[in-house]
Amino acid sequence: MRTVFLHGERDIRVAEVPEPEISTGRDAIVRVVAACVCGSDLWGFRGVRAIEHARQMGHEFIGVVERVGADVKRVKAGDFVIAPFYICCGTCVNCRNGWTVHCLNGGFWGTAIEGEGDSNGAQSEFVRVPLADGTLVVVPGGQPADELIPGLLTLADVLPTGHHAAISAGVTKGSTVAVVGDGAVGLCAIIAAKRLGADRIVAMSRHADRQALARRFGATDVVAERGDEGVAMLKEMFDGVGPDIVLECVGTKESMDQALRSARPGGQIGFVGVPAGGPELPVGTMFNTNVGVRGGIATVRDYIEELLPEVLAGTLEAGAVFDTEMPLTEAPAAYAAMDERRSVKVLLRP
Amino acid sequence: MRTVFLHGERDIRVAEVPEPEISTGRDAIVRVVAACVCGSDLWGFRGVRAIEHARQMGHEFIGVVERVGADVKRVKAGDFVIAPFYICCGTCVNCRNGWTVHCLNGGFWGTAIEGEGDSNGAQSEFVRVPLADGTLVVVPGGQPADELIPGLLTLADVLPTGHHAAISAGVTKGSTVAVVGDGAVGLCAIIAAKRLGADRIVAMSRHADRQALARRFGATDVVAERGDEGVAMLKEMFDGVGPDIVLECVGTKESMDQALRSARPGGQIGFVGVPAGGPELPVGTMFNTNVGVRGGIATVRDYIEELLPEVLAGTLEAGAVFDTEMPLTEAPAAYAAMDERRSVKVLLRP
Repeated sequence: MRTVFLHGERDIRVAEVPEPEISTGRDAIVRVVAACVCGSDLWGFRGVRAIEHARQMGHEFIGVVERVGADVKRVKAGDFVIAPFYICCGTCVNCRNGWTVHCLNGGFWGTAIEGEGDSNGAQSEFVRVPLADGTLVVVPGGQPADELIPGLLTLADVLPTGHHAAISAGVTKGSTVAVVGDGAVGLCAIIAAKRLGADRIVAMSRHADRQALARRFGATDVVAERGDEGVAMLKEMFDGVGPDIVLECVGTKESMDQALRSARPGGQIGFVGVPAGGPELPVGTMFNTNVGVRGGIATVRDYIEELLPEVLAGTLEAGAVFDTEMPLTEAPAAYAAMDERRSVKVLLRP
Repeated sequence: MRTVFLHGERDIRVAEVPEPEISTGRDAIVRVVAACVCGSDLWGFRGVRAIEHARQMGHEFIGVVERVGADVKRVKAGDFVIAPFYICCGTCVNCRNGWTVHCLNGGFWGTAIEGEGDSNGAQSEFVRVPLADGTLVVVPGGQPADELIPGLLTLADVLPTGHHAAISAGVTKGSTVAVVGDGAVGLCAIIAAKRLGADRIVAMSRHADRQALARRFGATDVVAERGDEGVAMLKEMFDGVGPDIVLECVGTKESMDQALRSARPGGQIGFVGVPAGGPELPVGTMFNTNVGVRGGIATVRDYIEELLPEVLAGTLEAGAVFDTEMPLTEAPAAYAAMDERRSVKVLLRP
């Protein structure tokens, strides 16, 4: 089958490898219908993180179950499934607490899971899914209509990650919210904030196409300014003190600083941007302003069932973050399009 | 009248100064019935923070209103009042948002308030209270019984500060909680956690007298270990992953580190320890564990009315944190007793 490897800085290659096999009895083989490139895949692509050996890529996919191991009970051949961006058992204490992303028995796509064998990257024709009962979510009604594919694929990561930012910050009816970051996750955070009842949602974005998508998703205002000017704009818009909540969806020093300085006294930051090199959070400033910080790697598996009906009904239009579609064989071009910001997010069809 | 000054490291003096006067019409003069020494007063006393000129001390007091300015409406002469550890207007946007500690027009005892004149330290016979309508809380029923004085004085700071830690962390029915810090605030955080319905409360304390007080206040368990051993004990006590919530009531590098490492994945830190020299918070660790951090300077004025009836009814026994009582003239001995940890908290009677 075809799969995608990162060999080094800006060196993405499509390779032929053997199809994965059932091995533990707790696993499943899924034929991938759609996968995609994540903003976080670009860190390795850009060489920000050193690559020691070729790495399998991709952690978001949806598809059809081909076969399951003898011990798999919740999932069967023919099911159309969504895989979250991680593998989880569904039964350990962290999974029971509603934190499947911290599963004690799971792990990440493209790495070996202790006692469960290898998993492969999602930018592939087939994926072996360890711990299939815990990991996979079955889409009711069988094979969905083609126009639903992008929306369903957002459930693997970006939509529930945006939702996680909003949940971590406690967005509720009447909240005032600013969203830092206009990538796919930031745009999905706007969808989530609107869905949770936010009264006013400010998208911080400089790009006309992303501003338009932000407004379509529920942003009531757009602020193009950043840094001191962005802070001043937000303060002015909200009684001179700033919004209740800021959702940080980038992960840089500047974006977290923007968030911390923009929230009103007693406000809250929800953050899902993977921290890229700090800085550490200024605890003295947090103490003096009572602005809390909560978030992290999104526990998306715990949210998929809640969000799925609205994606199927078409009321959550997150699928629109995919502005480009390519065959899997063109993965190198997909990475380049996202790296050069010509595309918000690229959907890959094997 | 007599008042207390800090002149330099370990140099506390009681001095005679003129009685304060009404000046703005929005102020009140309160005859102090009880004041006290705060753990945070010790930072200056110990020379951790440099003293450039003699500083008026004390920010917790209760007393009887002697006279009020012409524009004061909610408070009248003869009222028995509680003053929070700060001055607030009650009408600006932050006060309306429930964050009086961030009042745009207020400030701290012993400093000048712009447009409202000087305020003096609370370790005094009389205090001039700027913005009296916003700042003071009237105790219903006139002069309270003498045994209620310590409990009422805790409402000026330590009890609502402990409550703020618990509220910031979202303690609710069924929560599992560990409290780092066995000073007056940590002990009050135990009271608050119990009051909010926590299922299990671990006091982290090495001192037998404080352990006993912790158990009296609602701690179900005591852990004397610190650092790696303390973390391991807490993990073991709670399903191998740690408690839902940790309340950080110290403010040192070590105590925050203890808190961050002890909470379970997806847990929450509530912090009220005044940060003493960092370190900054490790955002990468927070991302990887989804442990949130929220807290800061406690907005105690917003909690006093909620907690007051239970203090008057005797169901909240926070007054027991005062294990020593001295006349105001012995303030130097009071500071020494707390500095040397011979006393949890000293009540001063003018």
